Amino acid sequence: MHLAAFLNAGPQGTVGWRHPDAGDGFLDAEHYVQIARILEDACFDLAFVPDSLAVPRSLGDTFDPAVRWGTGTPRLDPLPVITIMAAATRHLGLAATVSTGYHEPYNLARTFATLDHLTGGRAGWNVVTSFQDAEAQNFGQDALPDRTARYDRAEEFLEVTARLWDSWSDDVLIRDKGSGTFGRPEEVSAIDHDGAHFRVRGPLGVPRPPQGYPVVIQAGASPSGRDFAARWADVIFCSHESLESAVDFARDIRARVAARGRDPEQVRILPAATTVVGSDARDARRRHGEFVDLVAPEAGLSRMAYHVNVDLTEYDLDGPLPELEEVGVDGHYREILEFARREELTIREIGKWYGARTEGNMVGSPTDIADTMERWLEAGAADGFMIQATHVPAAFGDFAGEVVPELRRRGLIRSDYSGTTLRDHLGLRRPEPGEWRQRAGSQRSKELS
Amino acid sequence: MHLAAFLNAGPQGTVGWRHPDAGDGFLDAEHYVQIARILEDACFDLAFVPDSLAVPRSLGDTFDPAVRWGTGTPRLDPLPVITIMAAATRHLGLAATVSTGYHEPYNLARTFATLDHLTGGRAGWNVVTSFQDAEAQNFGQDALPDRTARYDRAEEFLEVTARLWDSWSDDVLIRDKGSGTFGRPEEVSAIDHDGAHFRVRGPLGVPRPPQGYPVVIQAGASPSGRDFAARWADVIFCSHESLESAVDFARDIRARVAARGRDPEQVRILPAATTVVGSDARDARRRHGEFVDLVAPEAGLSRMAYHVNVDLTEYDLDGPLPELEEVGVDGHYREILEFARREELTIREIGKWYGARTEGNMVGSPTDIADTMERWLEAGAADGFMIQATHVPAAFGDFAGEVVPELRRRGLIRSDYSGTTLRDHLGLRRPEPGEWRQRAGSQRSKELS
Repeated sequence: MHLAAFLNAGPQGTVGWRHPDAGDGFLDAEHYVQIARILEDACFDLAFVPDSLAVPRSLGDTFDPAVRWGTGTPRLDPLPVITIMAAATRHLGLAATVSTGYHEPYNLARTFATLDHLTGGRAGWNVVTSFQDAEAQNFGQDALPDRTARYDRAEEFLEVTARLWDSWSDDVLIRDKGSGTFGRPEEVSAIDHDGAHFRVRGPLGVPRPPQGYPVVIQAGASPSGRDFAARWADVIFCSHESLESAVDFARDIRARVAARGRDPEQVRILPAATTVVGSDARDARRRHGEFVDLVAPEAGLSRMAYHVNVDLTEYDLDGPLPELEEVGVDGHYREILEFARREELTIREIGKWYGARTEGNMVGSPTDIADTMERWLEAGAADGFMIQATHVPAAFGDFAGEVVPELRRRGLIRSDYSGTTLRDHLGLRRPEPGEWRQRAGSQRSKELS
Repeated sequence: MHLAAFLNAGPQGTVGWRHPDAGDGFLDAEHYVQIARILEDACFDLAFVPDSLAVPRSLGDTFDPAVRWGTGTPRLDPLPVITIMAAATRHLGLAATVSTGYHEPYNLARTFATLDHLTGGRAGWNVVTSFQDAEAQNFGQDALPDRTARYDRAEEFLEVTARLWDSWSDDVLIRDKGSGTFGRPEEVSAIDHDGAHFRVRGPLGVPRPPQGYPVVIQAGASPSGRDFAARWADVIFCSHESLESAVDFARDIRARVAARGRDPEQVRILPAATTVVGSDARDARRRHGEFVDLVAPEAGLSRMAYHVNVDLTEYDLDGPLPELEEVGVDGHYREILEFARREELTIREIGKWYGARTEGNMVGSPTDIADTMERWLEAGAADGFMIQATHVPAAFGDFAGEVVPELRRRGLIRSDYSGTTLRDHLGLRRPEPGEWRQRAGSQRSKELS
């Protein structure tokens, strides 16, 4: 069972910064070093930093609520953050989110190759295509391109980066001081990529990364996201409301991976788990209740407005939710409305509820949480979990101190690192040079068929 | 007097990797950590990492010589490299080169703001516009845009990044856990930039950097480069063949700075100094001779081909240099040819000489080198030096161990850090919010006049 930690390079969630035990050092290196050490002491496979390329805007197209409540801002650049964490550790894998929409493949390939060398093979890249218009507007666009266009660019982006990582064979460097011969030019190749989105001649200015390709992480839940993940991802990060939907998702992903000629056992599926640990179930519920109490209803409503484009602060906060047509995506507001009616919640109460929502809640004693995790593993829903913290560093400390010993006792997780690279930790083999052909090639065949 | 260190994130110069005392760890974090500690122990103001976004190509448009001789490749991404160095130090300033030609201002502004926060105000950005066609070809272009176009983009790039750094006032964050108020939205502003090269709405997703703006470094020697530096640069890095040309350059730069309404005392001019230290002048010359002996003539000719577009390997290496018309830029081959004739050097000998060339050579005893530096300071040619090493880490160790004590004895450099930020070390004040207006504004007035 694999453990990853989900860590914002800024305040956590809607309200994590406000927790009495939350550190406020998210602009300081020491904060990230402290968390990295907790995770490495607990033998986590990796820490994972999400990202967003804008201060979130919600209704009225304003960033005021995000700044006022600290929801989604600030966000430091994840790359320097994981580099600082790497410098403080020896084994922990480190993954940063970088958008294919607003970067150049040459730069991105070089950055991750550099990081993989400097960390001895511990780098991971979480590939996203961005999802806010506010992000697009920081890069010369009026609005985000549609999903098809974004994934089309992402596919080509991955092909280019993989080819650049392969542009030096594993045997270029000689460094023979005697003869003065530094490297073998015949083991370095231009890539001469000329595609719909990118023209890149290559080669990369950095030797092939220790891991061949850095570990590729992906979290797309849509059909195009799943296809993309099936082609390129080593680790798939997801979130599910139930064990059943998690099992269905895992089955679907593994089928898509196999259909592309890749080994389904070489993909790790990590559902989100926000753990709140107590001495027993009652104590854990109390702790969770204290966390929920921190949520200002307006902060939750602002987060909801950001997600579903509904501004309920215009209504009486102590009244019921209004019937609204055509808002949000995928019927998300409809679900919220039905939930509010069923539970007889006011707008204020829904704001509190929404702001306190975390992904894959596991509230209980260490035994309860280990039981749940074990059940998900046995059902084939997960290869491990992406642990999310209500507040940091303390909630990671709780998990490491309370749940990790129980998982070790059951023999579910390691008590020491056996390998050196992130691929080693995850049990993933090192990609062969040229493996991009198989991946990108299967996409091309599909388009031709 | 200010000390900066010039450090490739790869092999040094044409032949530095081949020196018997050179470390070969340029892909490893430990190599950079070791150098960072040498520099911090010697109280350097900063370390500076140059960059190039391609494997250099020379005649025949091939990267073969660069790989075979290790000239200009590999080049790690400087940003993770300086982040690793920052994590190992507490005072040393860290500057990375990033091109305005092939990055996005939002990303760049956020990366440096992040680094400035994580290092407590020790970040510097060396602004370049790139200079090789091989770089352009990794980013969808056939060839490098001309100098005017490159500087035009760079001007707008700097305006956008400065405005993004100012998009949060210094007083946004409240973080009042009691009331749940995180920040003051009225202290955060969109920038709504709409220019010839960039449309960026803002605000940045990161608070104003500790230094206001990270330290801006620039090395352009052309008139447009000098104007750019006069508007934006805090530190100017240059290279001179003689004290006279250095004095002229410094006088010209300070006049340009003053003409733009900036204080000429708030710009630091750091000429390159490649120091080879011996117990006396004769010992130093012997050491320099040993270094020169390492240069394979073909490696020097390949470097020359890269710089002046002349491939002399097609001729008899033991014959004289051919008379060639219209090669290289600014008559550079003509100078080389005249030098070869005057000194009666063969092509092979010129290859050796060219490959061993380093910038601002200072070969001598610690007293000799300190004398030269002092003379340059007194003549107004320099505010300090950009120390280059023939090989690393050893040559930095030689400088730190032999020359630094002599400079300290003379009271020319500090023996401890008094401030905390890179601006403190350099004696530069923190820019006020809105200072971009003065800088970019003067450019606009100039265009209108």
